[in-house]
Amino acid sequence: MEISKEHISDQLKQLQANICDALEKADGKGKFSIENWTREEGGGGISRVIQNGAVIEKGGVMYSAVHGDAPDFLFKESEHAVVTEKTARPKFYATGVSIVIHPASPMVPIIHMNVRYFEMNNGVKWLGGGIDLTPHYINKEDAKFFHSELKKVCDKHHPTYYSQFKKWADDYFFITHRKETRGIGGIFFDRLNSNTEMSFEKNLNFWKDVGSSFAGIYTELIKRNKDKSFNEHNKQWQLLRRGRYAEFNLIYDKGTKFGLESNGRVESILMSLPKFASWEYDHKPQAGSEEERTLSLLKKEINWV
Amino acid sequence: MEISKEHISDQLKQLQANICDALEKADGKGKFSIENWTREEGGGGISRVIQNGAVIEKGGVMYSAVHGDAPDFLFKESEHAVVTEKTARPKFYATGVSIVIHPASPMVPIIHMNVRYFEMNNGVKWLGGGIDLTPHYINKEDAKFFHSELKKVCDKHHPTYYSQFKKWADDYFFITHRKETRGIGGIFFDRLNSNTEMSFEKNLNFWKDVGSSFAGIYTELIKRNKDKSFNEHNKQWQLLRRGRYAEFNLIYDKGTKFGLESNGRVESILMSLPKFASWEYDHKPQAGSEEERTLSLLKKEINWV
Repeated sequence: MEISKEHISDQLKQLQANICDALEKADGKGKFSIENWTREEGGGGISRVIQNGAVIEKGGVMYSAVHGDAPDFLFKESEHAVVTEKTARPKFYATGVSIVIHPASPMVPIIHMNVRYFEMNNGVKWLGGGIDLTPHYINKEDAKFFHSELKKVCDKHHPTYYSQFKKWADDYFFITHRKETRGIGGIFFDRLNSNTEMSFEKNLNFWKDVGSSFAGIYTELIKRNKDKSFNEHNKQWQLLRRGRYAEFNLIYDKGTKFGLESNGRVESILMSLPKFASWEYDHKPQAGSEEERTLSLLKKEINWV
Repeated sequence: MEISKEHISDQLKQLQANICDALEKADGKGKFSIENWTREEGGGGISRVIQNGAVIEKGGVMYSAVHGDAPDFLFKESEHAVVTEKTARPKFYATGVSIVIHPASPMVPIIHMNVRYFEMNNGVKWLGGGIDLTPHYINKEDAKFFHSELKKVCDKHHPTYYSQFKKWADDYFFITHRKETRGIGGIFFDRLNSNTEMSFEKNLNFWKDVGSSFAGIYTELIKRNKDKSFNEHNKQWQLLRRGRYAEFNLIYDKGTKFGLESNGRVESILMSLPKFASWEYDHKPQAGSEEERTLSLLKKEINWV
């Protein structure tokens, strides 16, 4: 039985609601706003934003389902490109949930998740997604927990997905000009349809499990860290790390680029930016400090499990 | 007589020194650091940064002169491209001064200037540059003063340069996804060599005058505004405007892109980012407020003179 795009969108809407509920409980104070928006060229979304919570300073859980004529850049980029004449171009449908959470405390990590589904009426379709963690201070136990949970989700479906998609995350969440990873990575995958062992339906199940794993993983990380004490020095370091996060999102992130270039809703796309960020000229952490230790771990190919 | 690239670089170095002197005097407290750096592939620069001054919170006056094999993207972009084989590619030399000043007070505008000279050993050479102003609160008298001064510099050399280059600045300093200009514009020009009325040497004189005009214009704007009072609300608005400034520089600015892609010195390139910036989800200024008035003036094609 063919799974319809509407069915996938409905499940994503439900995922958005579940995650917001779980995050509100974990926060204990902040509440998500709800805003419905429509896109002139077709489709729309539901933006849910939490601000000034007890744990979360600024966070968004965004659902969208947009459609229309496949835009130019899809053809430039796509290995599936077969149609070049504008008159013959196919229709596209893209739906997904995107999350970025910036906690108030520098002891609680920033998290990002995205799950997305894309199809064209010429038969092309694929799944994409990822979860990655950006601790302001890297804690190896938390990093192990985070990656182990992702590995569990992957292993349930395919023996090499974790190692493949962990590597992909290392490569994707990389701030090239800084020669450092955004955080401790996680998993990232794109253009998943079917492959030797996995049908599209099997990959869809994997993809759903990735989405469902988010709330449990992040609420556990909140619980572990939200009551840790911190000082002004830790807070300023957090602002600097958030500056790097903004650099990644504005320069490299493909979702941000896709959104801004396809005339997406600017406020929904840029909700990933932190409430406050900082840049200091030529900042270098003190030798032997926790900040220096964290920097030294912002590298690819670390086995966190 | 042919003007050598070394001569142009020497003059830019002198311009950097003069501007730093003038800004230190205007600030009254802050001092510029001096840092010499070299580029592995050839050349280097002098980075001069001022932090936590009485007027200037963070500012850089950067000089550089780099050279080597012309990089790939120059050929993709350049209308002068004739050489496509890597083995035959020419050598390039690029030298310039770049300035961004972020004042502490929201009543003092952010300013940017860049003057640059580029040549290849295949005979191609050009001048580029620009000055633009980003007031957190637009003051029409200051805007008139700023544009009138730039017009004076332009008019001295060519009757239509001001209107041409003012339009170019409106188009260049535009945050497409926000549908707003970065500030009140100024002048911008690129790939200036010779044209009907102007030899390269005449354009070089115009270009030098642009650089020399900076210190007088900005120190006057500092004098006019530095003692104005402001409150927390004004300060938060300043952080939001700086967020927009960061968006422009990280997404659109060609100098930033060129720098990061050509393996330039990251800290020198990103000194343009403010010490502190802020993003609020879906921020809208109050109806009838000064903030709303400023937003309404962030449009192209305003005649400020």
